[in-house]
Amino acid sequence: MRATYIFGAGDVRVIDVPDPTLQAPTDAIVRVTRACICGSDLHPFHNMAPDSTGRPIGHEFLGVVEDVGAEVTTVRRGDFVIAPFVWSCGTCDFCREGLQPSCRIGGYWAGNGIGGGQAEAVCVPLADGTLVKVDATEDPALLASLLTLSDVYGTGFHAARMGGVEPGKTVTVIGDGAVGLLAVLSSRQLGAERIILMGRHESRTDLGREFGATDVVSARGDEGIEEVRELTGGDGTHVVLECVGHMPAYEQSTGVVRHGGTISRVGVPQYHAAPVGWGALFGHNITLTGGPAPARAYISQLLPGVLDGTVNPGRVFDVTVGLEQTPEGYTAMDQRTALKVMIAP
Amino acid sequence: MRATYIFGAGDVRVIDVPDPTLQAPTDAIVRVTRACICGSDLHPFHNMAPDSTGRPIGHEFLGVVEDVGAEVTTVRRGDFVIAPFVWSCGTCDFCREGLQPSCRIGGYWAGNGIGGGQAEAVCVPLADGTLVKVDATEDPALLASLLTLSDVYGTGFHAARMGGVEPGKTVTVIGDGAVGLLAVLSSRQLGAERIILMGRHESRTDLGREFGATDVVSARGDEGIEEVRELTGGDGTHVVLECVGHMPAYEQSTGVVRHGGTISRVGVPQYHAAPVGWGALFGHNITLTGGPAPARAYISQLLPGVLDGTVNPGRVFDVTVGLEQTPEGYTAMDQRTALKVMIAP
Repeated sequence: MRATYIFGAGDVRVIDVPDPTLQAPTDAIVRVTRACICGSDLHPFHNMAPDSTGRPIGHEFLGVVEDVGAEVTTVRRGDFVIAPFVWSCGTCDFCREGLQPSCRIGGYWAGNGIGGGQAEAVCVPLADGTLVKVDATEDPALLASLLTLSDVYGTGFHAARMGGVEPGKTVTVIGDGAVGLLAVLSSRQLGAERIILMGRHESRTDLGREFGATDVVSARGDEGIEEVRELTGGDGTHVVLECVGHMPAYEQSTGVVRHGGTISRVGVPQYHAAPVGWGALFGHNITLTGGPAPARAYISQLLPGVLDGTVNPGRVFDVTVGLEQTPEGYTAMDQRTALKVMIAP
Repeated sequence: MRATYIFGAGDVRVIDVPDPTLQAPTDAIVRVTRACICGSDLHPFHNMAPDSTGRPIGHEFLGVVEDVGAEVTTVRRGDFVIAPFVWSCGTCDFCREGLQPSCRIGGYWAGNGIGGGQAEAVCVPLADGTLVKVDATEDPALLASLLTLSDVYGTGFHAARMGGVEPGKTVTVIGDGAVGLLAVLSSRQLGAERIILMGRHESRTDLGREFGATDVVSARGDEGIEEVRELTGGDGTHVVLECVGHMPAYEQSTGVVRHGGTISRVGVPQYHAAPVGWGALFGHNITLTGGPAPARAYISQLLPGVLDGTVNPGRVFDVTVGLEQTPEGYTAMDQRTALKVMIAP
């Protein structure tokens, strides 16, 4: 089959690889109907050291079950399924607590012998714990929204939930990428009183306004912090959702959070250490939270709103390519000519 | 009157200063019955640059109201009062939310023209918001426990509350100082299932056991982390209460916290930046919280248990000195021959 591999920074290729086969009785083979490119895929696209053997890439996909191992009981051939960005057993204590990224035997796609989602098909480990069966659809808008449940919507929702967004709370969302926009949508769903979106790309922030942003601040750094403070009577907001992962976004977060507030990070941090002392967090009782979203846990919670059309998170996809054009999709997202690229193998 | 001033690292003196006088109609003068030395007072005792004019020190005290300004309505001459370690208005939004350390017009003792608590008397700003009237007592044990409501008990309680301690949760407390021991006591009050106290001073950890610690780990660093992990099936605990403030304690915290857990800091951080990236916090959905305790807010919550003898937090005081011996008290705490020193002016 054809599958997307990354061989180093800027070097993404679609290559021939062996078709995936069942490796364990708990596996399922899923033929990919839709996949997509994540903002976090851009991190290796920017900084991966050259590797002549390459490695698979992609962790967001949905598709049709083609085969199942003997012990798989919850899905069968022909089922339409969503695959969350972490595969997980569904039965260990962490899975039962809804913290699937910490599953005791699960893991991430595209590594340690596990395939990536930007491919024609994937062997899914622990299929009963991982896959969520939904009714098949041909509706492109619904297909797009279902695909967001694989990662980006769940990740935006995780930011808002961990940040403690609720009615009466004010929120700043840092980043107008797809995660940031869906953090806006999630904050609206959770009842935020005011949602300030920090982002510089007008077409994106316009979508953010449709998703529920009440204010947009395009300035960054100290100037952006100043603008958010002006909008909030000098105080900043109760919650800050950091949806980027770079140090300037972290620093912006500490600048716009209200005393006693929470910074919730879902952008994968591209730094190890950060300011957490008296002035940054401690002195004002600021809480720092967040991490990889338990997308699997959120699917049942978020699916009804997707199915009934209350929300349309799939609107974050503005470009669709065929599998062979996946490298061009990376370039488009890197150059910000695309917000989020869907792949239709 | 006589008052304690610090003139630099290792240089604490009791000197003659003018008697405090009412500066504003919202002030009260409190004659100090008991004060004490805080672990955080040891930070300037260790690293303050020499200053020939010196500055007052001390932020934990209780005493008798000697005079009040014309606008003070909640306390009057002769009242016995507890002064929390932050003075605050009691009426701004932060005070009403129970976040008095962020009071819009309040502040900390012993700076910006405000006196310190290790003195014969103190001029208390915003007396209505700051002071809590309680029934006077001559009972030394009760007096000691009431004094802990000024800071150390509220701070230990803040650690546990912000950490989300509740029935079924496992807790590691880092630090066997007075704050750590009262974080143990508070965790027990809040129903923690298991409380592992990390500390090396047997007399202190023995008191920690009496306060509710179920396990004591005396090793530190990687060895200490390993022991806590062994005690918890390899996982670490749901909650870690960091009651020290130095980087090794922070690193120990990230080493013993369970995935999805919370590190709650109340030791004033003696560092600016710390590891917060994928391996330290983010990858495992670890929350970092804490800060200066709203001791004022906790007094009404914690006072009943003190008055009815359910808890005896005053047991953290193992040495009492007169005001003139305050410098010796600092030395005793610094050399760890005293756990916490009470001052009886």
